[in-house]
Amino acid sequence: MVHRKPLYNRFLLAASQRDSFEVVLVSPRNPLNIGAVARAMANFGFSQLTVVAPYESHWREAQSAVGAEDLLQNAKKTESLAEAVSDCTLVVGTGTLDRRKPEQPIVRLPDLAPHIQRALDADRRVALVFGPEKRGLTREDLSYCHLLVQIPTDERQPSMNLGQAVAVCLYEIAARMDPVVSIEAQSELATSADVRGAAARSSDLDRLAGVLDEVMLAIEYSPANMRAANRHHLRLLLRRLAITGPDARRILGFFRQLLRRLDRRGTGSE
Amino acid sequence: MVHRKPLYNRFLLAASQRDSFEVVLVSPRNPLNIGAVARAMANFGFSQLTVVAPYESHWREAQSAVGAEDLLQNAKKTESLAEAVSDCTLVVGTGTLDRRKPEQPIVRLPDLAPHIQRALDADRRVALVFGPEKRGLTREDLSYCHLLVQIPTDERQPSMNLGQAVAVCLYEIAARMDPVVSIEAQSELATSADVRGAAARSSDLDRLAGVLDEVMLAIEYSPANMRAANRHHLRLLLRRLAITGPDARRILGFFRQLLRRLDRRGTGSE
Repeated sequence: MVHRKPLYNRFLLAASQRDSFEVVLVSPRNPLNIGAVARAMANFGFSQLTVVAPYESHWREAQSAVGAEDLLQNAKKTESLAEAVSDCTLVVGTGTLDRRKPEQPIVRLPDLAPHIQRALDADRRVALVFGPEKRGLTREDLSYCHLLVQIPTDERQPSMNLGQAVAVCLYEIAARMDPVVSIEAQSELATSADVRGAAARSSDLDRLAGVLDEVMLAIEYSPANMRAANRHHLRLLLRRLAITGPDARRILGFFRQLLRRLDRRGTGSE
Repeated sequence: MVHRKPLYNRFLLAASQRDSFEVVLVSPRNPLNIGAVARAMANFGFSQLTVVAPYESHWREAQSAVGAEDLLQNAKKTESLAEAVSDCTLVVGTGTLDRRKPEQPIVRLPDLAPHIQRALDADRRVALVFGPEKRGLTREDLSYCHLLVQIPTDERQPSMNLGQAVAVCLYEIAARMDPVVSIEAQSELATSADVRGAAARSSDLDRLAGVLDEVMLAIEYSPANMRAANRHHLRLLLRRLAITGPDARRILGFFRQLLRRLDRRGTGSE
């Protein structure tokens, strides 16, 4: 769960998954949003974009923007949603669904990945459909969908920006379709101490406690009758800190130097 | 898993969770991105925003934009990241981490929620920190973090837009902090840190680091050209140790006494 080295999945999706999954934007308006959708697709390893009846000037602006993703150049353009999803066997609609009574099964986004996974595993072609910024998908649009996905949002501000909604959906799908991920997620729950480096051995801690004891004596940290109690509490404290072996050596080095310095000054001042 | 009716969580987070979770933006530049961050926070039920050393004109533009979220008006502004996270006990840094060798434990975003859940359940204050658009968090920034989170992205386009990165992180946290999950997670995942007492706040650790720095100077622990590096490593080490608040005070008391003693001896010997 906690790792020391970066964990890039080289590609998040297998090539076959990537080629069988389509993101469909119905009449997107804002070129910045279109660019953001393309960016999110590239971030999460998706490449198939279809735009349905885009606003032409906005679409051209998005395609020609500096730094535009290649996948915008290769995007498919259709006149209708029906045409866009014609070869798909699982069409998933998105939206806030707050006012209309849904006519399809709804799945929460955190539960979506297995549906997509099953479809792709069965060599089905999948489309994830997003509506225009202002009004979302119409009832007519939704009638092409097998399933509606709902992003769980706060009811005081349920409506998401298009680029962010796409990012969140693609993240969820990509992150939870990686077979490597699921194995990692299952393999249990090492505490951070375990993976941070081997924990210091008890003898390392005792060596550290010994040097600290000398320091405390040198600076007259506690009256004689408190020393045994302090030693005890120090031992407990060192174990509470969950020190790794390498850190124990670093700390020991510091206190040894401190002690040498104290000895020298002690000599100088007496 | 598949439902017939809409599934809004009325509010995604409990009020106490919402108030204990801070989103921190370090020197954000693009007002559109700042607006998008605020939008995503509102979508997923978060309300506490802190901006560190923002570009003033861009920040004002974001705050005064039409439709700007209320939480932008109420955002806290600080000069430094240290100040922004001073009362937090779990500071989580974000980034693509593709070039630098990380110095903290890394957790993949899909595995992050239980960490946040545990901290919030233990009444700890949590910060999620995002760097500036171009360069991300610096090594210095990251040294204030207990944990780094990595969004799994495709290696061909790993770098995310700021507004989308925030949306993806907050979605993951909000969606997977379901209270039903939390009880399971709590019993399964309780680490020694939780049962040992409340974690030290970032400002406690900074105070301790300050005194240690004085000690190191007093004993001439390192040559002048190594001091900045040593300070950096000390900050990392203090966070690795997972020190509780009471232990931080104990250790601070010890080093203050040590410092007084060093001063006295220093005077005596010179």
